[in-house]
Amino acid sequence: MDYFYGPGRNHLFVPGPVNIPEPVIRAMNRNNEDYRSPAVPAMTKTLLEDVKKIFKTTSGIPFLIPTTGTGAWESALTNTLSPGDRTVSFLIGQFSLLWIDQQQRLGFNVDVVESDWGQGANLDILASKLAEDTAHTIKAVCIVHNETATGVTNNLAKVRKILDDYSHPALFLVDGVSSICALDFRMDEWGVDVALTGSQKALSLPTGMGIVCASPKAIEASKTAKSVRVFFDWKDYLKFYNLGTFWPYTPSIQLLYGLRAALDLLFAEGLENVFERHARLGKATRLAVEAWGLKNCTQKEEWFSDTVTAVVVPPYIDSAEIVRRGWKRYNLSLGLGLNKVAGKVFRIGHLGNLNELQLLGCLAGVEMILKDVGYPVKLGSGVAAACAYLQNNTPLIASRV
Amino acid sequence: MDYFYGPGRNHLFVPGPVNIPEPVIRAMNRNNEDYRSPAVPAMTKTLLEDVKKIFKTTSGIPFLIPTTGTGAWESALTNTLSPGDRTVSFLIGQFSLLWIDQQQRLGFNVDVVESDWGQGANLDILASKLAEDTAHTIKAVCIVHNETATGVTNNLAKVRKILDDYSHPALFLVDGVSSICALDFRMDEWGVDVALTGSQKALSLPTGMGIVCASPKAIEASKTAKSVRVFFDWKDYLKFYNLGTFWPYTPSIQLLYGLRAALDLLFAEGLENVFERHARLGKATRLAVEAWGLKNCTQKEEWFSDTVTAVVVPPYIDSAEIVRRGWKRYNLSLGLGLNKVAGKVFRIGHLGNLNELQLLGCLAGVEMILKDVGYPVKLGSGVAAACAYLQNNTPLIASRV
Amino acid sequence: MDYFYGPGRNHLFVPGPVNIPEPVIRAMNRNNEDYRSPAVPAMTKTLLEDVKKIFKTTSGIPFLIPTTGTGAWESALTNTLSPGDRTVSFLIGQFSLLWIDQQQRLGFNVDVVESDWGQGANLDILASKLAEDTAHTIKAVCIVHNETATGVTNNLAKVRKILDDYSHPALFLVDGVSSICALDFRMDEWGVDVALTGSQKALSLPTGMGIVCASPKAIEASKTAKSVRVFFDWKDYLKFYNLGTFWPYTPSIQLLYGLRAALDLLFAEGLENVFERHARLGKATRLAVEAWGLKNCTQKEEWFSDTVTAVVVPPYIDSAEIVRRGWKRYNLSLGLGLNKVAGKVFRIGHLGNLNELQLLGCLAGVEMILKDVGYPVKLGSGVAAACAYLQNNTPLIASRV
Amino acid sequence: MDYFYGPGRNHLFVPGPVNIPEPVIRAMNRNNEDYRSPAVPAMTKTLLEDVKKIFKTTSGIPFLIPTTGTGAWESALTNTLSPGDRTVSFLIGQFSLLWIDQQQRLGFNVDVVESDWGQGANLDILASKLAEDTAHTIKAVCIVHNETATGVTNNLAKVRKILDDYSHPALFLVDGVSSICALDFRMDEWGVDVALTGSQKALSLPTGMGIVCASPKAIEASKTAKSVRVFFDWKDYLKFYNLGTFWPYTPSIQLLYGLRAALDLLFAEGLENVFERHARLGKATRLAVEAWGLKNCTQKEEWFSDTVTAVVVPPYIDSAEIVRRGWKRYNLSLGLGLNKVAGKVFRIGHLGNLNELQLLGCLAGVEMILKDVGYPVKLGSGVAAACAYLQNNTPLIASRV
Repeated sequence: MDYFYGPGRNHLFVPGPVNIPEPVIRAMNRNNEDYRSPAVPAMTKTLLEDVKKIFKTTSGIPFLIPTTGTGAWESALTNTLSPGDRTVSFLIGQFSLLWIDQQQRLGFNVDVVESDWGQGANLDILASKLAEDTAHTIKAVCIVHNETATGVTNNLAKVRKILDDYSHPALFLVDGVSSICALDFRMDEWGVDVALTGSQKALSLPTGMGIVCASPKAIEASKTAKSVRVFFDWKDYLKFYNLGTFWPYTPSIQLLYGLRAALDLLFAEGLENVFERHARLGKATRLAVEAWGLKNCTQKEEWFSDTVTAVVVPPYIDSAEIVRRGWKRYNLSLGLGLNKVAGKVFRIGHLGNLNELQLLGCLAGVEMILKDVGYPVKLGSGVAAACAYLQNNTPLIASRV
Repeated sequence: MDYFYGPGRNHLFVPGPVNIPEPVIRAMNRNNEDYRSPAVPAMTKTLLEDVKKIFKTTSGIPFLIPTTGTGAWESALTNTLSPGDRTVSFLIGQFSLLWIDQQQRLGFNVDVVESDWGQGANLDILASKLAEDTAHTIKAVCIVHNETATGVTNNLAKVRKILDDYSHPALFLVDGVSSICALDFRMDEWGVDVALTGSQKALSLPTGMGIVCASPKAIEASKTAKSVRVFFDWKDYLKFYNLGTFWPYTPSIQLLYGLRAALDLLFAEGLENVFERHARLGKATRLAVEAWGLKNCTQKEEWFSDTVTAVVVPPYIDSAEIVRRGWKRYNLSLGLGLNKVAGKVFRIGHLGNLNELQLLGCLAGVEMILKDVGYPVKLGSGVAAACAYLQNNTPLIASRV
Repeated sequence: MDYFYGPGRNHLFVPGPVNIPEPVIRAMNRNNEDYRSPAVPAMTKTLLEDVKKIFKTTSGIPFLIPTTGTGAWESALTNTLSPGDRTVSFLIGQFSLLWIDQQQRLGFNVDVVESDWGQGANLDILASKLAEDTAHTIKAVCIVHNETATGVTNNLAKVRKILDDYSHPALFLVDGVSSICALDFRMDEWGVDVALTGSQKALSLPTGMGIVCASPKAIEASKTAKSVRVFFDWKDYLKFYNLGTFWPYTPSIQLLYGLRAALDLLFAEGLENVFERHARLGKATRLAVEAWGLKNCTQKEEWFSDTVTAVVVPPYIDSAEIVRRGWKRYNLSLGLGLNKVAGKVFRIGHLGNLNELQLLGCLAGVEMILKDVGYPVKLGSGVAAACAYLQNNTPLIASRV
Repeated sequence: MDYFYGPGRNHLFVPGPVNIPEPVIRAMNRNNEDYRSPAVPAMTKTLLEDVKKIFKTTSGIPFLIPTTGTGAWESALTNTLSPGDRTVSFLIGQFSLLWIDQQQRLGFNVDVVESDWGQGANLDILASKLAEDTAHTIKAVCIVHNETATGVTNNLAKVRKILDDYSHPALFLVDGVSSICALDFRMDEWGVDVALTGSQKALSLPTGMGIVCASPKAIEASKTAKSVRVFFDWKDYLKFYNLGTFWPYTPSIQLLYGLRAALDLLFAEGLENVFERHARLGKATRLAVEAWGLKNCTQKEEWFSDTVTAVVVPPYIDSAEIVRRGWKRYNLSLGLGLNKVAGKVFRIGHLGNLNELQLLGCLAGVEMILKDVGYPVKLGSGVAAACAYLQNNTPLIASRV
C-alpha cells in the first residue's frame, strides 16, 4: 500500500503538507459519524470558539470549509468583492502569483505590485496608491503573510498602519497559509478583514480544511458582494450557525476530531511557545545555510521567514537534483524551487509539529546531499552552527520540567 | 475526545457519511507526505485509471477534487455552462432542490420540473420540453440519479433515450452522489456527460473528495463555458495531468491512500456483486417496512432505491423523535426527514460497506424504537420478513467459499 | 493484508477475544516508547491503582503480566503453592479442565471435583472435603468463576462461605477470565486470594496482558511457595514496584495505553452499569434460545452466564457447521463447542464492549443459520423475544440523556 | 492520553522497544478476530514459514509465544533441560547476568564464565571447559549474541567451532534478542539449537511476542527434559501445529498482523541490506563517539555491536543525567547504563527500522546534551564524522533508484 517505501521515517521538510503529530493521527483514526447527531454540533461549537484564538480575534467569524488554501482564497475574495472591483495585490513569489491569477480569473481589477522574488511586498508603493486613491476605488488590499516560495514574511502591522494613515476603507485580506499557528498573527490588532489558512500547514493536519476568518466588516461586505458563489458562500454557513447545526453540507468527521486534537496540542504547548519554537528553528536553519556558504533567497533580514527557508544554490547546481537526491538516498523530502526560482533554490520547511533534532537530522542530510551533488560543503558545518545556537536557546520541554 | 460516547458500536444508518471499512481506516492512518515526490503521482495515476471503472467509462476524464458533493455539483455546472444557459432540472426532493438552488445562484436559467416528493423525475415533461426545443436552448439536463431525501432512483437510461429520440445535444449532467458504487452506473452506455459522487457515500470513505467524471463532450464544452471558476476549474487539473504531477493544489494524502484501498475492496468484491448486495439489502429493508405496516415514501416500485429507504410514519408520530430515540437509546444513527418531509419520514441508509447482520441489527432497533414512540408494531415482524428474504438470497462470501 | 475479507463488519461473538472499542484502538495506535522514561511509570502507577477497582479490592496487589490467561493461571499457582500441594479444583468444562491439567503438570496434587458439563461446581463436595480436612492438607481451592465452554457461572460467595464455615485456611484462587469486568466480582468481600483475567475478554483489549491480583495472604504465601518460577515470579514485580520503575522486563506500551483507555471507558459507563448491560444482553440471548426451541447447555438458572451462552443443537445437526456457516455466509463469528460438547453446542459470547443492536444482529444471523442447516426455526422468533425484553429494559445511554 | 507530551517526534534511541514503521502500525490498527476461524491459521502458517528466514534455518521449528524476551529465555531453557543440568553461561553484562540468574532460579547448575563488562564472552575458557568435560556433564552452552548493556557482539561461529572441535554434544542456546533481524544470524550454519528474540527489538514491533526457534536436536531434547513447564511448553504448540489450528491459547491478533507486515518490510528491503544498514549506522555512531573524544564501552573492535553503542562518559559526569536531559530538553530517548555501568555509560540503540538522518538527529542531540552537562565537546564534530562516512557509504533506497 506504500509507494516507494524506504526504511525508517520519512523526513518531511516540504513547507506543507507537514508532519502530523501522533495524537492527531490517533484522533482521526475513526469511523464516520452522523454529522446531524448532537455530538458533531457540540464539538463544532468548541472548534469555532477555539479556532478564533489562532487568529487572535474575538470579533471574527470563522468558517471551516472542506477545501484547500486555494478554495479558502476563493472564499475570501468572492464573499467580499464584486466583479470589476479593484484590488491591490503584491507579487513576490509563486503563491502570491497564483492568488493574483485567481483574482484576475474571478474578474477583479488587480493592481499588481511586483517585487523581485526574495523581497517582501513593496509597501511604499501601497502607500502611494492609497494616497492617490481618494475616490476609494481600491476595494481590497490582498497580501500573502508568508510567501512560501521564497521564505519571505511580510509586515502586516505596517500594512495596517498605511491603511490607517490614509484612512482608507479598503478591505484587508490576508493569506496566512504558511504563517498562522507558526508566526504571530493578530487579526483584531492588525485590523485584518479576512484571514485564512489551510489545515495541512502549521496546524499539522491532513489537507482538506480551509479555515477562513471574517471580520464584522467583511461579513458586512459579504451582504452586498456580487461575486457568484455557492459552495464558498458564507451565507449558507451563517444560516446553519443560526440553526445550531453548523454545517450546510457534510464535513469531514475525521478532520473535525483532528482539528480538536491539533488545537488542544497547540494550546497545551502555548501559542507563544509555538511561535518561539518556530523562531528558534528558523534561526537555526538560517545559521546552517550561512555556515554552508549559501545564500538565503530572502534578501533582507526583516523578511526572514521562520516557517520556510529558500536556499539559493550555485549556478552550476540544479536545485531539483538536491530534492531528488534527498528523497532517493536519505528519505528526506525538501521543497522544490518554483517557477522563477525553479532549479535555483530548494526549500526547507520548518513549520508545524517539529522539534530541534528533527531539524538537525534534516540539516545533516542537506549537507550530505550538497556534497553528493558536488558542492564543496564542509560536512558538519551547518549542523555545528545550528547546534551552537540551539544548545543555548532551547528551553526544557514544559511538561517535563 | 469522543462526544457522548455510548458502549458498543455506533450503528451508522444515515445515508452518508457511511461506515468506513477497517482496511480503509488503516490505509488512511498515516502521516502526511510530499505530494510532489514521485510516490504520490505514481499512486494518483492508478487512481485516475481505476476510478473510471466505478463510472463504467473508458473515455471520461475523472477529477478528484478536495471538496464535498456540493462542490462537485459546482464543478460540473461551472465547467460546462455559461451564465444564462437554460438547464432542465428535476425537483423531487431536498437534494435535487439544493442542486436547483445552486444552479439558480450560479446564474443559469433553470427550467424546473417538479414532482411530488416520493416520485421520480417526470420524464414525460422532459420529452415534451425537448420536443419543443428545436432551437436547442436547453444546454443541459440535470438529474439526481438517486434522491437521498426520499429514496427515489431515477431511470437514467430512459433520460438518455429521450435525449436521443429528439437528437437533442443538451449535456447530460448527473448527480450520482448516493448511487455510484452502490447502484449500477453506466456513464458511457448512458451517454452521461458529467457524473459525480462524494467520497463519503458508497465509496465508504471520509468526506472530502468530490469525484467528478467528464465525457469528451463535457471537456469540449468546458473550453467555451463562461461561468467563473478557479478552484473548481478542470483546466488547472488538465494542465497538471499533462505535466504528470496531477495536482494543481495540495490533495489529501490520506484520502488518496483511502481511495486506493476503497477501490481495491470494491474490485475484490466485484462491482456487480456490490450492486447485488445493495439490491439485497434494499429489498430486505423494504420487506421489513411492509411488515411493520408502514409506507415507503417512494411511491412506485420502479423508483425504489437500493441505497436509502425513507419510511413514512403515521401522522401522530414525529419522525424526528424516532431518530433522536435511536441515537439516545440504541446507539443507532438514522436519517432525518428533510424539508417537506421533515417529521414525516425517517430514513434508513443501506449503502456502502455493509452486510446483512448489520442491517438486521438496525431493523431490530427500528422496531423497538417504533414501539418506544407508541406505534403498535409487532416486535420481530420486520426482522422476520427481512430474514426470510435474506436467508434465501445471501450468497456465501466469495473469499470464504 | 486481510485474510478472507468479507464486506461490512465482522460480527464477533466468540467469547474472546472480543470487540475492541474504537477509543481503545485509537489509544493503542502508536509508536513504541522508552519504558524507563518518567512517562511510562507515571501511567503505570495510575493503572495499578485503577485496575484494583475491577477486582473490587483495596488490599490486593495487581500484576500486569505480558502473557495470556494460561500464563495468568500459572502465575497464580506457582507463586502461592509448592510442588505436591493439594488443591481442590472443579472440572465443569474445557477451561476448568485445562486449568486442572496445568495444576497437575505443575506438580500439585489435584483433588478434582467433577460435574456434568453444563452444571456448576459441586460445592457440596467441597464442603465435605473441607469438613474432612481437619489437617488442612488442602492448600488451595481453585475455581473458574465463569466456565466459558459451557456458559456456567459459579457462586463465589458460596465458596467463601463454605471455607469460612469450616474455618479452612486454604487459599481461594479464582479464574475470572470470562467474568471480571462483565460480572460483579468482589475480591475483598469474597476473600479471594488470587483473581485473574486476560486483556482480551471483558476488558475488550487485544490479547497479551494477564492481569493477576493477589491478596495480602497470597503475597505472604508467595514468600514460601517453592514452585519454580522466574518469568511469572511476583517477587520481581514487587522489587520494581518498590523502585518506582514498575517493570522487571519490557511491557507492551500499546497495551498500557489501551488499558488506560479501557478502564476510562468502563469507569465512564460505571462498573455497575456495565454489569447490568451484560445481564441484559445475557437474558435477551437466553430468551432467544428459548424462542428457537433450543436448550441452553447450562442446566440450571442459578448458573446462567451473562457473558456466554452455549446453545445445544439437536442431535442431527453438527454445531461446528453452524459456526462455519456463520463465518462463511454472514461474517459472523460464533464459538465452537469444545471437547465433550464439540459438535453439540455452539456458543454466543456476549461480553465486553457490546450493545443491544449488535446482539440482535447476531441473533438474527443465528436464526438464518439454523434454517440454513435444516433446523425448523421460525425466523424472527428469537429476535422478537429478545426485543420484547430489551425494549422494556434498555436504559437511555447515560451520556446522551 | 499522552504522558508528558512534547512537540515533534520522540527520538527513540533506546535499544528496545524500538521505532515501529508506519506500515506495521497500520497493520495492527484493527479489531480483534476469532483466532479459530480459517483466517488466523492461514496467516499463522505463512508466519511460521517466513519467520524461519530471519533465523536462517530450514530445519528449525519456530514458536511465537505471547511473552517477552525473559519468557523466551524460560521457554528455551525449560523445554530442553532438566533441573540440576550443568550449563556454561557467559556473564558479560546486565542481560547475560539476568539470564544466568534465571538459569540458577530454574535449578540448573550454572558454570558462569565472567568477563569484564565491555568484553565479549571468554571463549578460551569455554574451550578448556569442553576439553575437560569428557563425561559430557555440560548439557548446554548459553550465550547472549549481543549484550545490550555494553554493546558487545559475540562470535557465534567460533562457539560452534569450539563445540565441534571437542565433538561436544551440549546444546547451543542463543539469546538473539538484540541481534536477530539486525545482525547476520545463521542458525543452521552455526548449529544453534535454540535461538530466540523479542518482537520489540529489530523486528520493530510492540513488545509481546517472544520468538523462539528450536532445532530438531532441541525438539528431541524437549521430549525428555524434566523442567516443569506449561505455559512455555513446546509440546502444546506442536500439538496444535499438527491439528492445523496452531494456537494452544489465544494469540494477539494485532501482533500476528504486525509480524506479517514487519516480515514483509524486512524481505522487501532484503535481509542482507538490513544487516548492511545496521552495520552502516553502527559504524557511523562509533565514528561520532570517537570524534567526541569519548570511549566505547566495548573494549575491542571484534566485539563492536551494530545494534547498540554504550558510550563511556568521563568520571565527573553522571550518564543518567545525559539520559534525563535528552528526554527533558530534546525529546530524545537514550538508554541508561545498567548495574555495574550505571552512571558510567549511556547507550544509543541503533537497531530496527531506522535510517541515516534519524541517527544524525540523535547524534546532534547527544552533542548538545554533552555540552549541556559540561563535557567540552566540539559541537558538530560527531555529526561531521558520521556524515563523512555515511555520505560515502549510503546506497540509494532500492525502491527509488
